[in-house]
Amino acid sequence: MENTGFGKLKISIVGLGVIGGSFAKGLKDVPKAKLYGIDTDENTLAKAKNEGIIDQGFIDPFIPVQESDIIILCIYPKQITDFISKYKDCLKDGVIITDATGIKQGFIEKINPILPPNADFVFGHPMAGREKKGIDFSSGEVFKGANYLIVPNERNKEENINKIEELVKAIGFKKISRISAKRHDEIISYTSQLPHAIAVSLINSDEWEEDMGLFIGDSYRELTRIASINESLWCQLFMGNGENLIHQIDLFQNKLNQLKSCLVNEDEENLIKLFKESSERREKIS
Amino acid sequence: MENTGFGKLKISIVGLGVIGGSFAKGLKDVPKAKLYGIDTDENTLAKAKNEGIIDQGFIDPFIPVQESDIIILCIYPKQITDFISKYKDCLKDGVIITDATGIKQGFIEKINPILPPNADFVFGHPMAGREKKGIDFSSGEVFKGANYLIVPNERNKEENINKIEELVKAIGFKKISRISAKRHDEIISYTSQLPHAIAVSLINSDEWEEDMGLFIGDSYRELTRIASINESLWCQLFMGNGENLIHQIDLFQNKLNQLKSCLVNEDEENLIKLFKESSERREKIS
Repeated sequence: MENTGFGKLKISIVGLGVIGGSFAKGLKDVPKAKLYGIDTDENTLAKAKNEGIIDQGFIDPFIPVQESDIIILCIYPKQITDFISKYKDCLKDGVIITDATGIKQGFIEKINPILPPNADFVFGHPMAGREKKGIDFSSGEVFKGANYLIVPNERNKEENINKIEELVKAIGFKKISRISAKRHDEIISYTSQLPHAIAVSLINSDEWEEDMGLFIGDSYRELTRIASINESLWCQLFMGNGENLIHQIDLFQNKLNQLKSCLVNEDEENLIKLFKESSERREKIS
Repeated sequence: MENTGFGKLKISIVGLGVIGGSFAKGLKDVPKAKLYGIDTDENTLAKAKNEGIIDQGFIDPFIPVQESDIIILCIYPKQITDFISKYKDCLKDGVIITDATGIKQGFIEKINPILPPNADFVFGHPMAGREKKGIDFSSGEVFKGANYLIVPNERNKEENINKIEELVKAIGFKKISRISAKRHDEIISYTSQLPHAIAVSLINSDEWEEDMGLFIGDSYRELTRIASINESLWCQLFMGNGENLIHQIDLFQNKLNQLKSCLVNEDEENLIKLFKESSERREKIS
């Protein structure tokens, strides 16, 4: 870990929730000059300081923002726009900003025009999280072995993209891929937002009853874990990627209807084909 | 564990796959006279014997079936019908038979007429399993804390139902509920078969690509774990409960369409309502 190249850098994390807290915990053993935590909640800052995962906590971003070489924004998409608008004139020259937002295209189009020329925003997406809110549910472990997506754009300097890649690798992310904003939003609507839409709809079924807990096994538990959902955040993510998500829901419903047809027609042969295809595909991802 | 009341009983497990193997491993520390394993695969029997989870293995069920006080059938639904037809005249007087089949109504209607009067079949359903096949994936741990459903019918003696409840409690099942065959199949089509239909359809989407593994997080991984599916078994379960499952798919599609409408109409208020409802429901099951 000695050679990660952050030894002289000051890093700020904005928003010490479950994601920001996990970044802070993940950075614990990565050498750096200072790690600042910025949050609107004093208790959260006190906890982070007491647990030794940040060097200093701030409610007012003014000072840490001026000093930071890297700023990791772990707040909701709309708050990021407000944050940049408000603090764009206090940013340190050459600062690298990154984020953890689950949608990119519309978001980047909003952020880039308000960025000052001395700041480079390298848009990122850690493909890991928790269904719970707050620092208490954060963990340095959640990012270990996980995927990380970087969405470069024409403003980015290659060396800054490399820096963020190096940083998330040091935290424990395993496979780091670069992807265009358009493709990111398409693929994420399938791998992330659609599963959430499914989980929510599964548990919201009219079949659900209060004593359901007696009749479930691991499969139902797993398929509904993310039905416990941060409603404000996910509302922004869904609405910010609506067109793609609608398309993915349609594709998914087609496949479910195909399976339903097998049941209606008592077509065992085609049902088994669907099962074989799904099993083969599942073997290919780990 | 001394007083579980199985100390003098001989128990046979038919089919040492992932479920039968887990039963055997779960029974390891439960006192009993003998535990016999019956399987068509010699290697499986040798493994079970070497690992000390059965006392003796048999390819031919004739001898163990004659001696057994309890027979646990962990084979596919159709194989159970064949098994009972073939061995019904060799069963020990007063034998209690149980199973692990995921559908009940049509199944019980097939089994009961072919049962001899000296045998009591207490239909059971362990709400736990693994997506993989075979004894290598079995584990005594998988049943710990899990739900167990008993589906009594008019042929059953209360004392025999109690015996099976006692047995599965000794193995580690936590909440054991009795339920009618009709309700069992309705509720299981929602809590078990629908999640499998969803997982299969999610991974079978046209959006899926070979390099998908780079763009997924825990939610996609969890929602598709059971898409790796034992196709012969689940084809029987789906077809044996088709009407209920079709109904559940319809209910689920309704909810998903409701969510989709929120996206189409950019209706944040109702989307947040759906998220709040799903979160509240998820809190109530553990």
